[in-house]
Amino acid sequence: MVAKFVSEKNLRFLLYDVLDAESLTRHAYFREHSRETFDMVLDTALKIGRDLLQPHLREMDQDAPKLVDGQVRVHPMVKTFMTECGEGGWIGAHAPFEHQGQQLPTMIINAFMFIFGAANYSASVYPMLTNGAAHLIESFGCKELLETFVPNMFAGQWQGTMALTEPQAGSSLAEVTTQAEPTDAGYYKIRGQKIFISASDHDGVENIVHLMLARIQGAPPGVKGISLFVVPKLRPNEQGGLTPNDVNVAGLYHKLGYRGAPIAQLSMGENDDCRGYLVGEPHKGLSYMFQMMNEARIGVGVGAAGIASAAYYAALQYTRERQQGRKLAEKDPTKPAVLIIEHPDVKRMLLFQRSVVEGSLSLLLQCSKYADLAKVTEGEERENYALLLDVLVPVAKTYPSEMGILAASQALQCLGGYGYCDEFPVEQFYRDARIHPIHEGTTGIHGLDLLGRKVVMKKGAGFRLFITEVQNATEAAMEYPDVRGYAERLEEALNRLQKVTSVLTQIGQQGNTEIFLADATLYLELFGLISVGWQWLLQAMAATNKLESPLSEQDVQFFEGKMFTFKYFFHYELPKTEGLLKRLLEADGLTVRMSDELFSD
Amino acid sequence: MVAKFVSEKNLRFLLYDVLDAESLTRHAYFREHSRETFDMVLDTALKIGRDLLQPHLREMDQDAPKLVDGQVRVHPMVKTFMTECGEGGWIGAHAPFEHQGQQLPTMIINAFMFIFGAANYSASVYPMLTNGAAHLIESFGCKELLETFVPNMFAGQWQGTMALTEPQAGSSLAEVTTQAEPTDAGYYKIRGQKIFISASDHDGVENIVHLMLARIQGAPPGVKGISLFVVPKLRPNEQGGLTPNDVNVAGLYHKLGYRGAPIAQLSMGENDDCRGYLVGEPHKGLSYMFQMMNEARIGVGVGAAGIASAAYYAALQYTRERQQGRKLAEKDPTKPAVLIIEHPDVKRMLLFQRSVVEGSLSLLLQCSKYADLAKVTEGEERENYALLLDVLVPVAKTYPSEMGILAASQALQCLGGYGYCDEFPVEQFYRDARIHPIHEGTTGIHGLDLLGRKVVMKKGAGFRLFITEVQNATEAAMEYPDVRGYAERLEEALNRLQKVTSVLTQIGQQGNTEIFLADATLYLELFGLISVGWQWLLQAMAATNKLESPLSEQDVQFFEGKMFTFKYFFHYELPKTEGLLKRLLEADGLTVRMSDELFSD
Repeated sequence: MVAKFVSEKNLRFLLYDVLDAESLTRHAYFREHSRETFDMVLDTALKIGRDLLQPHLREMDQDAPKLVDGQVRVHPMVKTFMTECGEGGWIGAHAPFEHQGQQLPTMIINAFMFIFGAANYSASVYPMLTNGAAHLIESFGCKELLETFVPNMFAGQWQGTMALTEPQAGSSLAEVTTQAEPTDAGYYKIRGQKIFISASDHDGVENIVHLMLARIQGAPPGVKGISLFVVPKLRPNEQGGLTPNDVNVAGLYHKLGYRGAPIAQLSMGENDDCRGYLVGEPHKGLSYMFQMMNEARIGVGVGAAGIASAAYYAALQYTRERQQGRKLAEKDPTKPAVLIIEHPDVKRMLLFQRSVVEGSLSLLLQCSKYADLAKVTEGEERENYALLLDVLVPVAKTYPSEMGILAASQALQCLGGYGYCDEFPVEQFYRDARIHPIHEGTTGIHGLDLLGRKVVMKKGAGFRLFITEVQNATEAAMEYPDVRGYAERLEEALNRLQKVTSVLTQIGQQGNTEIFLADATLYLELFGLISVGWQWLLQAMAATNKLESPLSEQDVQFFEGKMFTFKYFFHYELPKTEGLLKRLLEADGLTVRMSDELFSD
Repeated sequence: MVAKFVSEKNLRFLLYDVLDAESLTRHAYFREHSRETFDMVLDTALKIGRDLLQPHLREMDQDAPKLVDGQVRVHPMVKTFMTECGEGGWIGAHAPFEHQGQQLPTMIINAFMFIFGAANYSASVYPMLTNGAAHLIESFGCKELLETFVPNMFAGQWQGTMALTEPQAGSSLAEVTTQAEPTDAGYYKIRGQKIFISASDHDGVENIVHLMLARIQGAPPGVKGISLFVVPKLRPNEQGGLTPNDVNVAGLYHKLGYRGAPIAQLSMGENDDCRGYLVGEPHKGLSYMFQMMNEARIGVGVGAAGIASAAYYAALQYTRERQQGRKLAEKDPTKPAVLIIEHPDVKRMLLFQRSVVEGSLSLLLQCSKYADLAKVTEGEERENYALLLDVLVPVAKTYPSEMGILAASQALQCLGGYGYCDEFPVEQFYRDARIHPIHEGTTGIHGLDLLGRKVVMKKGAGFRLFITEVQNATEAAMEYPDVRGYAERLEEALNRLQKVTSVLTQIGQQGNTEIFLADATLYLELFGLISVGWQWLLQAMAATNKLESPLSEQDVQFFEGKMFTFKYFFHYELPKTEGLLKRLLEADGLTVRMSDELFSD
């Protein structure tokens, strides 16, 4: 039996009623689309999720990838899914029609990726990475690279990867040392090691295409000497065939979760025969990567929200079936036990999960919309959307990742002892969810990115745009009697965010960089609560509008539940800003002054 | 190589300098003991932890117990350890000399259980459960039961268990249905099922002794009709041998973590030949159990703090070996990378872990001291210690359990991608830690216990005693210039705790039980932060005293680090009370009004 893993109704509510995805179709690039084509995409994604992805969720966890004779073997479903993704146009969905793409908005792509991620996160990573890698070639590669690699990737026959991390260069890409030696033939000889590379070898596809960072001999040190290469596992030869390209799997990681996807260590050039093809210009690799990172980071947020969604529905189902205990006011032990969903503390745990899932998804789709608008508008408008996206990316990556873990943990808690056992799926969600604050930049890195870079860039222009967006929402909310009081709370939090931002950036301007950034992770947490509060305000207004129109009884329940979840967020989650604000304003450098030796005994 | 898993220095500091464990030896019951005998116990426990327990930590996780032909097979180390525990007197450590015990204070017992739990939590559970079960027989059983069962249990040859939970009675023991039919021979015939019973069958011992809740035929409904029985796996027969007692293992659970200990489902009386021996009087089973629950619940807190300790030292070691990135203010990429422990955000994560580990342990030893004093004092004094213990038990169980998960998660985060892989031990700690908010009463149950029962019992006498204890500490702290400001913060939080308690209990008195208790879990979280803040204040005073005396350089580092951790707690953790207080004072019944249907769509 397939269990519920997403709410279709909520997804469509966010897309159409809260964030007006249809408005995108007024722009030329998206004009072939309509709500009908969007809905078809969602319907098909849901079908794939139900029929193919979720039924293999547990199997793929239990029967993890294996390294056999230098080749990674994965669950046979991966091949089926990648073929399906190729045939259905899922991998190239973003690309223009002229590249055999679908010209779909990022909003819709992230909506279906949310569905895939909720159904089976590990599986969803294969097409996502292929899309990201192909998109890099499309955007920065020459015509020959595009023609050689991208169609096979869009077809789901060649897997794409992002090969950044090295043993000595985890979070710090400045330290990348993989070497690229130019040859007269135009290609580069690649030598080095990469670690933690997702989907970097498997038998579900015919070939693997690594988008790899390496340093051309003689390049400047640091991030300004890093170039981007296409390094395939098998390189196309002049006879139209494929030749092994001296990329070897040195080992597979055994992971806590996210086990359906292999993460490998790669060794390139052991036999001096690994060829890499330069993408774009030398030494610009990191800047190309960065232009794609927004996508990948939002993708992580989407996956995190997806897992939290699946965990929430598993918990909801259990709490509606499990009888235990009596109402708090009931003293008579002969009365029958009630369903545990009737206990306020269980409802609190469910509301927490729902507020994380629906709040995260809303923020992620909001960011997706900014990405779409930055693509189809021009001039200052375009720049503003790009700035908003830049500011919000670390938030949209981190809030779902960090809160998704807590949401999965509360889902597990709803099941009590059963939640701890593998006969129910929540323990897997709990394990799977833990990857997200680590990959695509740890939470600490994103804190530094937000406060040290995004908030101050262009003299704070992006930050001011964000403030204006939230203020637009709070002003609009003043017209809604049931929402107004919450808008006032958000406004107050926003004012205090501005104050703390000003205090901290002044410290930075005075040259106290370490104190400025010491609590950047807490600043990111604060920013996340306010951003998600903003999205909940937008949802509350849209739900209020809906509740004033004729609705089915089911819809009334959904929107009333939506209003409760909105209120839950403001009563239980937003108050967490209080402690964060108090701490952030202290800015006393406690963690800067604490020294290594003082951890000794 | 054995990794560090506890700080001996910290343990002795808490026992001797903060909580004055030696003062217990002034009481007759403990007068055979001295700091020297306590230290010997700790030294031996550390040796067992290093030589026997920790070396098998990973193996016991990977090679989990198996059910083979109706018998559970565990790692051979379990037999070695139980034998060691028997020979070394660890299981009967609490018992009086006349019962072949050691008459050791609970403070020392929990100190060595912390060591065992940090070294290998799953292993530590075998003697702990045996002790708990034997203690029940000792306290409430007749002489014959005591003589038949307890010596074998103390010797580590027979395993004890607590068999409470049933399929339909998880958190709600009122629903226990296991039947006990009286016979003329004096024993009862037992029929029923128990689930989630830890260590309830294994080949590391000769026999298993279940302390089991069951209902005598015709007993009143609810908790007032539950009796306590000894139900052995093999029953002693008249020939001095052992006869199978019709207790069968119906299945083993496959768990997220805590895999070194088997958790089984039991079926009693399938062949109508399961005998149970009544402990104490009929229908008083739950009250007997409750008298032991304080111990077991503090034991869970101790285990949780132990896992967090091991995770913290694993993270500390990694952050001192791993180089990555540069100082925040360093722009030159040619400068060598620094150890990640030099990054303020990494120090923040480590300080968080240390504050949880050392704060939790302090609170647990404080509770242990109350337990000891309640045992050796009389009259009002005794009653006061017992009340203090009663109030604090849900807190001392829950704070380490909930925060231990977050601490293990931050330990994992310190290792980045490696933390997610099983080549490092932190992913196991992360899995192991997740059991604690579930077993021995879920966090939700303890919230209800604290606010609905403990805080209001005896007209709030226990709560007032707690307030006085904290006030005594804040007043004493006024003499310490470096600590005074923090004492004022704690006093303010304490005043607000009193206010929120008064607001909520008034709601309860007005009969609005559901609103009164709806946010009991948040109240428990608030109570935990304040209780641990109190313990940090005590530690800060003791550390300040130390720092004013002549010390080795190493000791200076330790105590200065202690002061930083104390300040970390007050700057980063205590402010979390702000949001909790804000929410708790609203008491608007949001989660009471939210109804099941509104989760639908």
